[in-house]
Amino acid sequence: MLDRIAEDLEKIREIKPLVHHLTNYVVMNETANATLAIGALPVMAHAQDEVEEMVNLAGALVLNIGTLEPYWIESMILAGKKANKLGVPVVLDPVGAGATRLRTEAAKRILNEIKVSVVRGNAGEISVLSGFGGKVKGVESEEAGGEVKEVAKKLSSKYGLVTAITGKVDVVTDGNRGYQVENGHEMLSRITGTGCMATTLIGSFLGVEKDYLLAAVGGLVAFGIAGEKAAKGNEGKPGSFQVALFDALANLSFDDIKKMGRVLKF
Amino acid sequence: MLDRIAEDLEKIREIKPLVHHLTNYVVMNETANATLAIGALPVMAHAQDEVEEMVNLAGALVLNIGTLEPYWIESMILAGKKANKLGVPVVLDPVGAGATRLRTEAAKRILNEIKVSVVRGNAGEISVLSGFGGKVKGVESEEAGGEVKEVAKKLSSKYGLVTAITGKVDVVTDGNRGYQVENGHEMLSRITGTGCMATTLIGSFLGVEKDYLLAAVGGLVAFGIAGEKAAKGNEGKPGSFQVALFDALANLSFDDIKKMGRVLKF
Amino acid sequence: MLDRIAEDLEKIREIKPLVHHLTNYVVMNETANATLAIGALPVMAHAQDEVEEMVNLAGALVLNIGTLEPYWIESMILAGKKANKLGVPVVLDPVGAGATRLRTEAAKRILNEIKVSVVRGNAGEISVLSGFGGKVKGVESEEAGGEVKEVAKKLSSKYGLVTAITGKVDVVTDGNRGYQVENGHEMLSRITGTGCMATTLIGSFLGVEKDYLLAAVGGLVAFGIAGEKAAKGNEGKPGSFQVALFDALANLSFDDIKKMGRVLKF
Repeated sequence: MLDRIAEDLEKIREIKPLVHHLTNYVVMNETANATLAIGALPVMAHAQDEVEEMVNLAGALVLNIGTLEPYWIESMILAGKKANKLGVPVVLDPVGAGATRLRTEAAKRILNEIKVSVVRGNAGEISVLSGFGGKVKGVESEEAGGEVKEVAKKLSSKYGLVTAITGKVDVVTDGNRGYQVENGHEMLSRITGTGCMATTLIGSFLGVEKDYLLAAVGGLVAFGIAGEKAAKGNEGKPGSFQVALFDALANLSFDDIKKMGRVLKF
Repeated sequence: MLDRIAEDLEKIREIKPLVHHLTNYVVMNETANATLAIGALPVMAHAQDEVEEMVNLAGALVLNIGTLEPYWIESMILAGKKANKLGVPVVLDPVGAGATRLRTEAAKRILNEIKVSVVRGNAGEISVLSGFGGKVKGVESEEAGGEVKEVAKKLSSKYGLVTAITGKVDVVTDGNRGYQVENGHEMLSRITGTGCMATTLIGSFLGVEKDYLLAAVGGLVAFGIAGEKAAKGNEGKPGSFQVALFDALANLSFDDIKKMGRVLKF
Repeated sequence: MLDRIAEDLEKIREIKPLVHHLTNYVVMNETANATLAIGALPVMAHAQDEVEEMVNLAGALVLNIGTLEPYWIESMILAGKKANKLGVPVVLDPVGAGATRLRTEAAKRILNEIKVSVVRGNAGEISVLSGFGGKVKGVESEEAGGEVKEVAKKLSSKYGLVTAITGKVDVVTDGNRGYQVENGHEMLSRITGTGCMATTLIGSFLGVEKDYLLAAVGGLVAFGIAGEKAAKGNEGKPGSFQVALFDALANLSFDDIKKMGRVLKF
């Protein structure tokens, strides 16, 4: 498992897949930088007149509904349908699903109209989408309605995709196989956009890994380890931690993955 | 005064009010991080289909007209009216009022149609809105038309709200009571978005403090002290200063407020 | 040459030209900070109702098509035409031209309808616009179709403007005179938005320098030297490098330009 993730990391740096983002305004800069730091190439493009052409150049498509507008939803549908036709994997980040109807329904519409490869969200967001309820305050999860693994499996079975729920421990499942990722650090919750960056890294791994479950685990292991390394000397200092996080992503090595990765099957 | 501000800071970290922003593209990331660093929770949402629902979850609403578009003005009006109905306090940042008619008129429309709790701007912006004139170059204030305290009082009386004019010394008044905040550092003028971050912090204080005048003073004292602490060792280095500013906000303590706060009544 | 650039740098800090940007979401914060760091004043404004008024206050106009939408293209045309009437110089960054028709055609439309002073792009983007072809992957250039200097000269002759192609070595020409800028560092390719920041700096120099060729060379020399200084101790660390880049821009001195500048005529 960790061998394969470490190899995928090296593949990202060799192949440099283009990761096409339709993402929210808050995180555009930092997700672009996270993509570059891990070794892939980012592009942000959302105009309905260009998303289909752009996704044609891409190794993966990231759909993130963080600062949604009606125009953007249509763009996401267009980009996603084209990605499906081309066989480009799609990762969805349903930021704030459950907080407003617009977000819940946009996420559901994307799941219904597009063949999504991986969904990454917090427990509250995934819980809402899988039909368990789940109380969500803004874009910060409060609590999962129902047991986290069950919630993840339910969404995976419902749509035939990989679900990743991130939190203190991350849970990733395709409905049958399941992994728990124990990498990460509390400091990741102290800056904005880390969930979105995790999604972006899953996008980078999807650009080189055909097994979407492994790609999702890979992205989360890589991001979690980078978080642990960045936190050294920077606990309680969110500004310094953010800077160190990009440094850590750029310096993440084959050996880091193998030595520091903590993944359990369930 | 400083006791109350220090207590409010602790309340922010305990209650973690959700601060709903409709703000400009330039500062979305840094105002979200400033909100997290002070201890509150940020959410950015501007779609007309969701702003009313989102503000329903919020402890305060921030309206910032920095990169305006007609669609956003309507969203701000919708969000603001709903906030008024719910009793959620509203802080307005009239970025660039006076620079263009669109901005001046959008700010006036918000002031006329919404019961705003606090307005925070530079002397030029506030001067234009209170009817004193005031010459403004882009979004950087050049000079106040009329004496700063008079300008602030005028706006407060006109709309029944708290006005905060930030500059070398900050002036805060509700038309009757007035305070001068002497915290801050020249380095705050060397990076973009610090005015917007000050507004965001006022939003965080509004989430826990019913006396809007104290909330405005609290936000400015907290931000000013963080600026002073961040400037240590970083004078003339805007990149390093920006990083240190988030660290300082996150580490701002009860004692910092009490020992370093410099507030004068006028 | 370097004397003049060093003097222009001092003029920027004295005159503080307002640089009006219509730019992409990814880089709004960092280009605003780059503008402040070099000593000029940034403003971001894109609403059709205000761009003409705003450009009236500006010393230079930056048009960057990085995250385009139809509304923004019209805003750019409006702002550009007004800039032409007022004699305000215009710099265009055709981000991703060649990657999608929307971007290629938007860039061409701007070049045809507006008198652009300087275009800055990578070899692929400029190659597409000058009619040489050029293969572009997302917004990252792959290779120039044709020899770089020829490509640049062709675009300059076609539209009567200054063309700057940035890469390992930068090429700047007005079709007759040509300069090669050898400043810069590999780390500049490891973070997002450095091309856009280079364009922004050209905008700052255009605010004080009537010879557009010199302004373009000046912006690239200044940015390249800042990159070299920022890379010291930060190789392989993109997060730290980004922070150091703003520090270096803010501390760039007359002597740095004169001692470190590497410009060759061709």
